[in-house]
Amino acid sequence: MNPEKIHAIIKARRIDAFLVSNLKNIQYLTGFTGSSAYALITKDRRFFLTDFRYKEQAEREIKDWDIIIQKGKWIKTIYSLIKKSGIKRLGFEVTVSYVFFEILNKSGAALVPLKNLVERLRKFKTEEEIANIKEAVQRAERAFLNIKHLIRIGVRESEIAKRLDEQLKKAGCRKAPFDIIVASGINSSMPHAKFTEKKIESGDLVIIDWGGESNGYFSDMTRTLLIDGSNLSEKKKIYKIVNAAREKALTTAKEGVKTRDIDRSARDVIKKAGYAKFFGHATGHGVGLDVHEAPSISYLNSERISETMVFTVEPGIYLPGLGGVRIEDMVLIQNGIAITLTSLPRELEIIKQR
Amino acid sequence: MNPEKIHAIIKARRIDAFLVSNLKNIQYLTGFTGSSAYALITKDRRFFLTDFRYKEQAEREIKDWDIIIQKGKWIKTIYSLIKKSGIKRLGFEVTVSYVFFEILNKSGAALVPLKNLVERLRKFKTEEEIANIKEAVQRAERAFLNIKHLIRIGVRESEIAKRLDEQLKKAGCRKAPFDIIVASGINSSMPHAKFTEKKIESGDLVIIDWGGESNGYFSDMTRTLLIDGSNLSEKKKIYKIVNAAREKALTTAKEGVKTRDIDRSARDVIKKAGYAKFFGHATGHGVGLDVHEAPSISYLNSERISETMVFTVEPGIYLPGLGGVRIEDMVLIQNGIAITLTSLPRELEIIKQR
Repeated sequence: MNPEKIHAIIKARRIDAFLVSNLKNIQYLTGFTGSSAYALITKDRRFFLTDFRYKEQAEREIKDWDIIIQKGKWIKTIYSLIKKSGIKRLGFEVTVSYVFFEILNKSGAALVPLKNLVERLRKFKTEEEIANIKEAVQRAERAFLNIKHLIRIGVRESEIAKRLDEQLKKAGCRKAPFDIIVASGINSSMPHAKFTEKKIESGDLVIIDWGGESNGYFSDMTRTLLIDGSNLSEKKKIYKIVNAAREKALTTAKEGVKTRDIDRSARDVIKKAGYAKFFGHATGHGVGLDVHEAPSISYLNSERISETMVFTVEPGIYLPGLGGVRIEDMVLIQNGIAITLTSLPRELEIIKQR
Repeated sequence: MNPEKIHAIIKARRIDAFLVSNLKNIQYLTGFTGSSAYALITKDRRFFLTDFRYKEQAEREIKDWDIIIQKGKWIKTIYSLIKKSGIKRLGFEVTVSYVFFEILNKSGAALVPLKNLVERLRKFKTEEEIANIKEAVQRAERAFLNIKHLIRIGVRESEIAKRLDEQLKKAGCRKAPFDIIVASGINSSMPHAKFTEKKIESGDLVIIDWGGESNGYFSDMTRTLLIDGSNLSEKKKIYKIVNAAREKALTTAKEGVKTRDIDRSARDVIKKAGYAKFFGHATGHGVGLDVHEAPSISYLNSERISETMVFTVEPGIYLPGLGGVRIEDMVLIQNGIAITLTSLPRELEIIKQR
């Protein structure tokens, strides 16, 4: 990330400085991976604030910023920096807590709320970021392939989740983007079930939703498998519909298209099949340093898709008492069209009893 | 948690309702473990709001609350509930984002900022909570004992962290409270180092900081080991000082004592030994549904220790270029005194080469 962009934005917004408080935004701007920091950017200077615990780490990770170690209460360090730098109009991120806003408001500077300033930059991925996301996808896929044999009758959801987690770590992921979901049978109709001690049974739909990581960048994917059994026809039917919806969203996703049109294209497939009310979530979301970030692929969002955006496409149908299907891929907009980053097969796989 | 307490607080504060937005506070009040929810409590009613994805989970987990499924934008569901319930004065948690405060402010109700209302209740643990925390401690200890043999010359920090993480999962922990720290040699002088590809070497101090989980409740502990080698005298010396500081804090921690006096008691031991400036963090913090929660055992905090509080005691000395020592135990205030929940030994263990 080139911090000159931020200096230019500060000048354009007619503020004297911008206080960055969101840790992922700070990581994006500075490279710092610790859990306690602020960044204060003026028209021509960049201050990085952290506490004693991260002194050495900050000195190793951060180049071209003045590193300031906080003493006593955070806010005093910030007040003194505002005063010393002669800041009269201070931009702040609207994601700060109300209580932080209140104490910041006593600094003497006029506060200017700034919305999504860094988040907007983060939507467009650099080559390095894309390489990290691709690696995060590959790690997640390798891990899944190593535990796929466990998806069979008699194995507990919790066992699959634990083994998948182990494999993710083994593949090099330092952290998980979210708690792995393994939801089988009637549990699979809860889109955000985690996992239980339930054993997989004959005829179960099994949803696995997991992600990988590489250098702080995440991946996110879902596959649904079907365990052989009786009365599978509606389960097979909803799988086909969801897969068609996913395919439709993928072909709709092009540079210049509104995100809500991608959502609508997938939703229409499900609606025409008569399952509209069983697909209650958005079709996708951006992925990067946060596993859920801009752009939201939602019917509420009218922003347009651009080159280098990375996001998920994940339609689903969830039938209480029967089970659910979700198929989630990650895509990258490259040369105007959506390239699928996820390579695991999407055709329905029916697991036969061995 | 008895929600009647909240109704009583609402009446005492002369507000019509209280909107809870912090997810851990919501989990504490309702039992809900999902990641998208609000709770609105009036003088005599309790509304639980979540989205489509968590409908079934909410119905399973939550008793005695009216469950409302959000549609479209969150804020519209909240506005409509405020209107329907005739709420004129609405309390909100100051931890909400500034941007959420701004849109909530358009609801028509007068907003009353409330600070630490639920957090204050969470400081005092019930028997069930204590049982979960104890289980989280035991799981973390079992996991550590299963990987302790790896702490030896030639093993990478990353390998130890991965194997410890696997063992935590195997012990039953569904999530980790934080990224495991394995910091050896010069890395150990960074109090919040994570882990690197560095191999453990002769003469290294090795800090391991990790935690367990049980039913959403966390544990947090640190042990420092010394690898046999030459020039160990200052390393042994700072270990002794830190251990004495820990012991001192433990005996100081009693019902009625101010948390800052616990901090001071540990800090004085380190100060008298001449290492004051190498202990830059607070002596401890509360642990529960959050791994860092109230009370802070800090020189900035004048609140008093009470029965059923659970917190860490974790003094440290960090010498850049040489290494660091931290020893962290969890304690529970029971019958007026601090009971140590952590049972792993605290005496310096020197790992001989095999």
